[in-house]
Amino acid sequence: MARGRTRSVFVRRVGPTGERRRPDELIVEEPLSIQLDGTLVATTMRTPGNDYELAAGFLHSEGMLGDATITGVRYCADGSAVESEFNVVTVETSGKAPAPTPRLGSTSSSCGLCGSEAIELLTERLDPLTHEPFDAVMLTEVADHVREKQDLFGKTGAVHAAASFDRTGAIIDVREDIGRHNAVDKVVGRRLLDGAIPATDLGLYVSGRASFEMVQKAWAAGFGTVVSVSAPSALAVETAQAANMQLAGFVRDGEINVY
Amino acid sequence: MARGRTRSVFVRRVGPTGERRRPDELIVEEPLSIQLDGTLVATTMRTPGNDYELAAGFLHSEGMLGDATITGVRYCADGSAVESEFNVVTVETSGKAPAPTPRLGSTSSSCGLCGSEAIELLTERLDPLTHEPFDAVMLTEVADHVREKQDLFGKTGAVHAAASFDRTGAIIDVREDIGRHNAVDKVVGRRLLDGAIPATDLGLYVSGRASFEMVQKAWAAGFGTVVSVSAPSALAVETAQAANMQLAGFVRDGEINVY
Repeated sequence: MARGRTRSVFVRRVGPTGERRRPDELIVEEPLSIQLDGTLVATTMRTPGNDYELAAGFLHSEGMLGDATITGVRYCADGSAVESEFNVVTVETSGKAPAPTPRLGSTSSSCGLCGSEAIELLTERLDPLTHEPFDAVMLTEVADHVREKQDLFGKTGAVHAAASFDRTGAIIDVREDIGRHNAVDKVVGRRLLDGAIPATDLGLYVSGRASFEMVQKAWAAGFGTVVSVSAPSALAVETAQAANMQLAGFVRDGEINVY
Repeated sequence: MARGRTRSVFVRRVGPTGERRRPDELIVEEPLSIQLDGTLVATTMRTPGNDYELAAGFLHSEGMLGDATITGVRYCADGSAVESEFNVVTVETSGKAPAPTPRLGSTSSSCGLCGSEAIELLTERLDPLTHEPFDAVMLTEVADHVREKQDLFGKTGAVHAAASFDRTGAIIDVREDIGRHNAVDKVVGRRLLDGAIPATDLGLYVSGRASFEMVQKAWAAGFGTVVSVSAPSALAVETAQAANMQLAGFVRDGEINVY
């Protein structure tokens, strides 16, 4: 189901020398509810498109699938033929996935969680990666390769991207979304639906910053390298160390930081 | 409680001509659990600092306080004197706030929610604003004024900002956080704790894009103008129209779009 991912509007462009009306393309943002075996587990604001990937990738990133295999993914099509039918995706595991549990934090001790404990929770369910680092100079060029494949960015100037790439820097998949997390979940979901998880010997590119959650998603999917346009957080660096993941970012003037 | 909001590390800076080690400052990211009258309602990854503002602002933005007045805000200090004590904030309303309910989406019809319905949910609880638009040329300069007051951005190059400003463009409060939503909640929370909500005749600045949730938070706090560095989503524009809010963004070359 191809639906509009941008919308045309007229805007007033105003500056010191006056103003003019001109056409503009805005990125579309709509809620997507994600169900696991019929139970609603999350609602995210996303750019429509690749919704099956988003739902599958989200559930995998959050560890909600356990060891279960996905047996089906579908929209909530009850025949009413309304637009919002396409704002709910159900991922089916024939009941094999663990019953959904509360998210990060809600099961922690009464006095909260600190960052190192958040990492420990990941180490309990994820093994360290075995990964030979990629060439860092190659990583400085990934952003340019991704940009060439960003359809929506050129139109709207306001959309995040995530991409998978190989050791030579060749881009495998690019996904764009108003939400950074969604773009990553879509890339992960594509591989999951193709039976290609873990993403052994592949890298994950994220626009913007590398936060804890970005590194968590990459680790869960098995990406051994993560490169972000902007800088990572301190906790993202610590998480990458725990994962034995290569983390690089802050690309400027052809140079990149390796953390 | 002043805790570190940046952390010093050494990184390898790599480019085509070689590499060198150099010091770098990373933005700190730690989980904050937010409790309302003792019930855990959310955990967010945030940059420590202004945590009371963040907790209060979040609850207000989400409409979880209802008509209740905040009677106290405190860390989970049970005397154990561990770092994670400062990763839980409880907002007290002496039980006057409505019992926490599931978030957006989980109460919608079985076949999901569309964007226009998400706006309708807001119109049910929020009145349209009565606001005289600000001078658009002034809005092109707000980002520069905010940047001058961004302590963490200068150090780390990777942090979002939100700010309140008046009709002349004078900046009132600036808050920085690794999360865009958190920065906005902190600005809102400051005003709430000062008894200065609604933010009549004030504007809200957000770095990055203006999404639906940004406009929702601004509307709930009574900001009549929202300006973002980058472009808004289509749904953000529709929500601003429903709110009678002035929405401007995509500042480039001294010009700005008014939507």
